[in-house]
Amino acid sequence: MASPLSKPLAELAAGLRAGAFTAADLAEEALAQQRLGAYHHVDPERTRAGARAADAAFAAGRDLGPLQGLPLSVKDLYGVPGFPIHAGSPARLPARFEAAGPLLGRALDQLAVVTGKTHTVEFAFGGVGTNPHYPTPRNPWDADAPRAPGGSSAGAGVSLAEGSAVVAFGTDTAGSVRIPAAWTGQVGMKTTKGRWSTEGIVPLSTTLDTPGVLTRTVADQIVAFRALDPAPGPLPSVALEGLRLGRCDAVFFEECSPGVAEAVEEALAELAGAGARVRPLELPMLPEIVALFGQGGPVSTELYFFLREELPDWYAGLDPNVQARIGDAGNLPAHEYLRRRARMAALGAEAAAALEAVDVLVTPTVANTPPRLDAIATTESYKPANLLCLRNTCVVSYLGLCALTLPCGRDAAGMPVGLQLVAGPHQEERLLAVARAIEAKLGSAAERLGAPPL
Amino acid sequence: MASPLSKPLAELAAGLRAGAFTAADLAEEALAQQRLGAYHHVDPERTRAGARAADAAFAAGRDLGPLQGLPLSVKDLYGVPGFPIHAGSPARLPARFEAAGPLLGRALDQLAVVTGKTHTVEFAFGGVGTNPHYPTPRNPWDADAPRAPGGSSAGAGVSLAEGSAVVAFGTDTAGSVRIPAAWTGQVGMKTTKGRWSTEGIVPLSTTLDTPGVLTRTVADQIVAFRALDPAPGPLPSVALEGLRLGRCDAVFFEECSPGVAEAVEEALAELAGAGARVRPLELPMLPEIVALFGQGGPVSTELYFFLREELPDWYAGLDPNVQARIGDAGNLPAHEYLRRRARMAALGAEAAAALEAVDVLVTPTVANTPPRLDAIATTESYKPANLLCLRNTCVVSYLGLCALTLPCGRDAAGMPVGLQLVAGPHQEERLLAVARAIEAKLGSAAERLGAPPL
Repeated sequence: MASPLSKPLAELAAGLRAGAFTAADLAEEALAQQRLGAYHHVDPERTRAGARAADAAFAAGRDLGPLQGLPLSVKDLYGVPGFPIHAGSPARLPARFEAAGPLLGRALDQLAVVTGKTHTVEFAFGGVGTNPHYPTPRNPWDADAPRAPGGSSAGAGVSLAEGSAVVAFGTDTAGSVRIPAAWTGQVGMKTTKGRWSTEGIVPLSTTLDTPGVLTRTVADQIVAFRALDPAPGPLPSVALEGLRLGRCDAVFFEECSPGVAEAVEEALAELAGAGARVRPLELPMLPEIVALFGQGGPVSTELYFFLREELPDWYAGLDPNVQARIGDAGNLPAHEYLRRRARMAALGAEAAAALEAVDVLVTPTVANTPPRLDAIATTESYKPANLLCLRNTCVVSYLGLCALTLPCGRDAAGMPVGLQLVAGPHQEERLLAVARAIEAKLGSAAERLGAPPL
Repeated sequence: MASPLSKPLAELAAGLRAGAFTAADLAEEALAQQRLGAYHHVDPERTRAGARAADAAFAAGRDLGPLQGLPLSVKDLYGVPGFPIHAGSPARLPARFEAAGPLLGRALDQLAVVTGKTHTVEFAFGGVGTNPHYPTPRNPWDADAPRAPGGSSAGAGVSLAEGSAVVAFGTDTAGSVRIPAAWTGQVGMKTTKGRWSTEGIVPLSTTLDTPGVLTRTVADQIVAFRALDPAPGPLPSVALEGLRLGRCDAVFFEECSPGVAEAVEEALAELAGAGARVRPLELPMLPEIVALFGQGGPVSTELYFFLREELPDWYAGLDPNVQARIGDAGNLPAHEYLRRRARMAALGAEAAAALEAVDVLVTPTVANTPPRLDAIATTESYKPANLLCLRNTCVVSYLGLCALTLPCGRDAAGMPVGLQLVAGPHQEERLLAVARAIEAKLGSAAERLGAPPL
């Protein structure tokens, strides 16, 4: 019999309610799958106790929500009561960071089962997914040599790929949900800033941080969104016939690794074959946004401020890659910080207006293939790989938009390629509906990519 | 016959609708009262055309709202279509600053009649009300020697006092509605940050700016609030019997000019005589907030940023007092700017919690008497007077609270003294209800203070 955990969330929820299996069954299976190093901290007894609570509630006839009894992993940037928090640093953070915020609280109140806390880039400031203080979670798509899993939610995609969780909580400041989702063949959504509270999450950038979840399919993402969003709207009806897909070659298709742009092109051709209309979309604000990203935007300064004020003892031992990115952010003048934020807001308004000409903008989620770990072992080799992997997602973040990535193929190295769908602010429902229509045509990750070798 | 314009707003509105007088009558009377230098720019023909439009709408049976046909003055920090805007500087600002934002737009859409644009401290960065580029509006309460009218909405209170407007639009970043209201014997409310949009207003501090209006009485303030607020709540029922008035002597009652604290004490005694319970309220965060204010908080940097980015040519000619306050804000590090904002938010949450123990906190609105202009003619003499006049109001602004000032007596120099009522965020309706009960006991400004000598 196939593992129950491989079922879609909706079937898992139905099976739990029908008594086909218990939350304890799912938890045991999830725990048994922890084999690719996704987790920073696990606590099997706590996980089992969580499953027993969900089962006891079912037995008492209590249905607390769609996530009840489902195993989910949580990036170690979130406070989870009962779990220590390190945010990717060597030292445990003070207890005040362990409290859950409202977003994870909604999952906990539904008696979802926490399988453990997944690895993160230190203080989430990096897109590749490495962290010198801990082993890097193994990207399951390359059996020959370890490749980066994507970050900063480095263990999130891996936890889904290995089957140790069915929903993975991540955070996305400049791509940290979308990059690991793309590089491990999962679905991930970057919500509009402000839609989901960042309370209870160690901050990287108060300007840009957004929580998000990774799931195995768009269908699962929709279930999770409805379970977590405080006020989810109905999904609009979307058909591929006549769907307006914007394409912007400038920036987004530049510097792609072999096979990345090709996989996106092939998906676009299939969608066009089904009636979608792919049209060019000019986004003249991209070069300035990319330049702002290159300068560190508001992020490096906001992280510097946070560490200086809240965790000064953590600064000295920082990952050299993180330290290099913070650079001299401590010397940034406030007026320049304000200028960057003002430019982001102004350019974001222009981008949102431009996006009204299409249903979604479609780009490669990440331009480069996941690098082999031995190719990014020094700060010099890490830096360009990191900046490139963040570029396509970060642009979206800086412009205040929302976006979703779903797998669309594999690149020349055999690694998964993500298709990024981008929409204006607060268009999550539209993104999910478009993604659902696209997934129905292209097939889910399992169907389109096959199974990873590991 | 008494001037129609001296009537309360509600009676003016009723009289217009009953045909007792026309908007044109009111406009002519308002124009004729312009005698204390409140205005930076007037355009009588435009004012008359506005009145004719209001009368024509009445004649057509159109009632567009409570402000229809009422003469109102607008601080020259607001964009008003058809009027030039200088924001207190010698040179006219670019045309993009002339568009009206949503708050003033609500008044214009009701066919309120603009009597002109009132003087402001240059870029609103000062509390005394002086501006070296223009004559200072005359505070009508001292016939012997010119005294400061309060700022930065320097012409707003004077326009009400002289009878050239019945509502005066101002802005309050650190006290700029409350100080001129207090020093000219008017009522003014500082709304909670974010409640009223600052769009269409030249920014001083994006963190702190709030629009507000000055009126002659609390009753008028309530009419204006209901006419302008997008979603006004009902005013709670408030009786003086049992009303909990908090009193905090630390900071708020320090360094008061002769007769200021005494006028507040006397008002409190009268309210206590009517059953109000005056109780001490500890606010241990005050010294840190005062220190942040002394450092310029976020304001000096935000103004520096705005001028640098939007109006670089305006910088060189700035009022030396404004330039001195900006100081070296251009060198403030971003992390220090972020620290100040974070401390303000944290201390503000503490203050809001402390205020739950009372119905309102009661303080002198301004500690010092309006200085004679010849006593603040140098930057050295201006500075302490300016900082002291801003202190009691600025503390409230930095803590994110809302507040209302109403006249409660006269000080030893015969100048009006304001009673500041302070409440937690978004408690405007409570403030108005408490102020109404207090005004009913103490009497309106006209009743309690008498008429100004000028």
